[in-house]
Amino acid sequence: MVLNGFQFSAVEAAIKKPGRKDLALIYSEVPAKGCAVFTINAVKAAPVLVSMERIKSGSVRAVVVNSGNANACTGEPGMVVTLATSQLVAEGLNIPVEGIQVSSTGVIGVQMPMERISSAIPALIDGLSSGTLDDVAQAIMTTDTFAKMEARSVEAGGISYTVAGITKGSGMIMPNMATMLAFIMTDVEIEASLLEKMFRRAVDTSFNAITVDGDMSTNDTCLIMANGMAGNPVICESTPEAAVFEELLNDVLLSLAKQIVRDGEGATKFVEIRITGAVNDCDAKLAAMSVANSSLVKTAFFGQDANWGRIFAAVGYSGAKLDQSRLSLHFDEVCMARNGVFTGGDAEQQGTVVLKKKDFTVTVDLAVGTGSATVYTSDLSYDYVKINADYRT
Amino acid sequence: MVLNGFQFSAVEAAIKKPGRKDLALIYSEVPAKGCAVFTINAVKAAPVLVSMERIKSGSVRAVVVNSGNANACTGEPGMVVTLATSQLVAEGLNIPVEGIQVSSTGVIGVQMPMERISSAIPALIDGLSSGTLDDVAQAIMTTDTFAKMEARSVEAGGISYTVAGITKGSGMIMPNMATMLAFIMTDVEIEASLLEKMFRRAVDTSFNAITVDGDMSTNDTCLIMANGMAGNPVICESTPEAAVFEELLNDVLLSLAKQIVRDGEGATKFVEIRITGAVNDCDAKLAAMSVANSSLVKTAFFGQDANWGRIFAAVGYSGAKLDQSRLSLHFDEVCMARNGVFTGGDAEQQGTVVLKKKDFTVTVDLAVGTGSATVYTSDLSYDYVKINADYRT
Repeated sequence: MVLNGFQFSAVEAAIKKPGRKDLALIYSEVPAKGCAVFTINAVKAAPVLVSMERIKSGSVRAVVVNSGNANACTGEPGMVVTLATSQLVAEGLNIPVEGIQVSSTGVIGVQMPMERISSAIPALIDGLSSGTLDDVAQAIMTTDTFAKMEARSVEAGGISYTVAGITKGSGMIMPNMATMLAFIMTDVEIEASLLEKMFRRAVDTSFNAITVDGDMSTNDTCLIMANGMAGNPVICESTPEAAVFEELLNDVLLSLAKQIVRDGEGATKFVEIRITGAVNDCDAKLAAMSVANSSLVKTAFFGQDANWGRIFAAVGYSGAKLDQSRLSLHFDEVCMARNGVFTGGDAEQQGTVVLKKKDFTVTVDLAVGTGSATVYTSDLSYDYVKINADYRT
Repeated sequence: MVLNGFQFSAVEAAIKKPGRKDLALIYSEVPAKGCAVFTINAVKAAPVLVSMERIKSGSVRAVVVNSGNANACTGEPGMVVTLATSQLVAEGLNIPVEGIQVSSTGVIGVQMPMERISSAIPALIDGLSSGTLDDVAQAIMTTDTFAKMEARSVEAGGISYTVAGITKGSGMIMPNMATMLAFIMTDVEIEASLLEKMFRRAVDTSFNAITVDGDMSTNDTCLIMANGMAGNPVICESTPEAAVFEELLNDVLLSLAKQIVRDGEGATKFVEIRITGAVNDCDAKLAAMSVANSSLVKTAFFGQDANWGRIFAAVGYSGAKLDQSRLSLHFDEVCMARNGVFTGGDAEQQGTVVLKKKDFTVTVDLAVGTGSATVYTSDLSYDYVKINADYRT
């Protein structure tokens, strides 16, 4: 992977337990076009409030991010830490502070250890290099069990460019704008308005189409930086080049989003929920999210129990328009119910075979229109309870 | 308890596993004024569809109810069973079929064993007596670990009357009209319109103020029957007698609703969530339900972890209007956070002491208005997952 003009660094600032990197920096050698989507939670962490203001300029130069502490519900002291952190990074890099985005993830309601962060910043800046994106992916992990990265390149006319991204989950995942944290870097040259339009579309079908536990975080951020250093002719709207870039972008974001679900807290299953035949796409997504967030459906997945009735119940209370006598349901290719009732025969046995797989698809056809949506979710296991009952200890 | 003019019966119809009564009958010796609230799930069980139609008359004579099978997602055959069951009961009791309400609870999507039900009906009718309400409460249980009953009486002017009720939980509890099943019987004489008004108000602050797992059932029904056989002068609106009856009714419904939460699947905690200072009561209920349904909050309760930040996060994504810098939070009398930030001192230790109790109250003050709401919920434990992963096996 060649990602021109980006450098990375990660250090141990002792925000998390010893032995784990927890402070990271993403730096573009030139100002990058940037846009971002943030949590719509009314309770927003200090770094979200600061970053939301700064991104309005459309330009990003660096991202400083820590794990181990969300800097949420920390009031004025939390805001001071966010501002001071970005000020120190700006001075160290000799760039304007307005171009610095700040992100935090971790426990809510605990004040940040400012001194440890400020002592770590010189080493953070000294460590910048082009080959250490995986260190950054490691450093932003909290309950994640693996680092989440994706990178894809294309070549056109002898010039290649790359879209690379990192993200972290894996609890409090019910994004409605973006997931916990995701940073996308590309060296492509592209019109700013087109970048933003494509980015928002890609987020809608990736990070905004996943759920682990239905809890929306105070820190959700998904940011893209495009620094144009690949040297390609600028990509403009409605061109073949724009279509190529959008496909690349969608692939990277969807891959990252799926990695979050696959690493969902306690997850033993990766389930694609597809709703077809809704009156419109919005209704389809309502129904899909209702199924994907149902504790009863998710525990049945964990139990490998082909309890399809719970799925109809969840579709039923979603608010999506439907006629229960027209509903049908498949587990992968196995038709479990048709016209609202059980298919019979050996559907139970065949459906159970599907549910014993690690990955499967649940398709519900509402048969009242042409709207459709796909979301991705995990199951609800003993380990989800264990991880979250003991999170702070 | 004297509940004039009501008789009860319960038998074993082999719908559930052997040794458990699963078919029950509630019978009023005279036509009772009746009203009911039902699930708003778009997927409704056959008995719900039938009962919704019949209750429009305002008159109820009997309720036949089974556990072990919800008769939901069963299509035309399920409807035939519901109609045939009520027809057989009507013939046995020699009353019009329109006065018979039918309820079912249990697994979704499995056809009902009509033959076993029809063979059991003669014994069901023969068994009617005034003293066996507890048998009915037993017979409607599914994953419930105890039978849920409440009865209160008052005396006025030498005449006493009673409000008695039974209910069952304990999963798929997120009523939005009523809970799974609740039947309220009273021998009071009261104006029909007043009864309905008071009943709906009482349901709103009891059954519609509880949640176990956020899943709304296909079968939720809450029914009241008032047969007037106490012989009291008819209770009319805006009288002292109306106030006395409403208090009694509220007490019985709230007691039943709380019993469901206390027996919530896998529950180890009973938590009252109070929201104050909202812009209105509707916003307060949104915020309260958001906290009460958060998997992260509920696992923290199970872990006895005073992780108050998750509660602010859940209030934040509820949609309720708020200013995060004004939020405060108490566990019982312990102030954990004020003006959006941690109180400090020994709040952590004191808060943990509260969370180690079996019953406690979480109060969040939004400080933006005068709206308030109270809801009741349980924690999310290993046993919730176990019960629901293995439900059908």
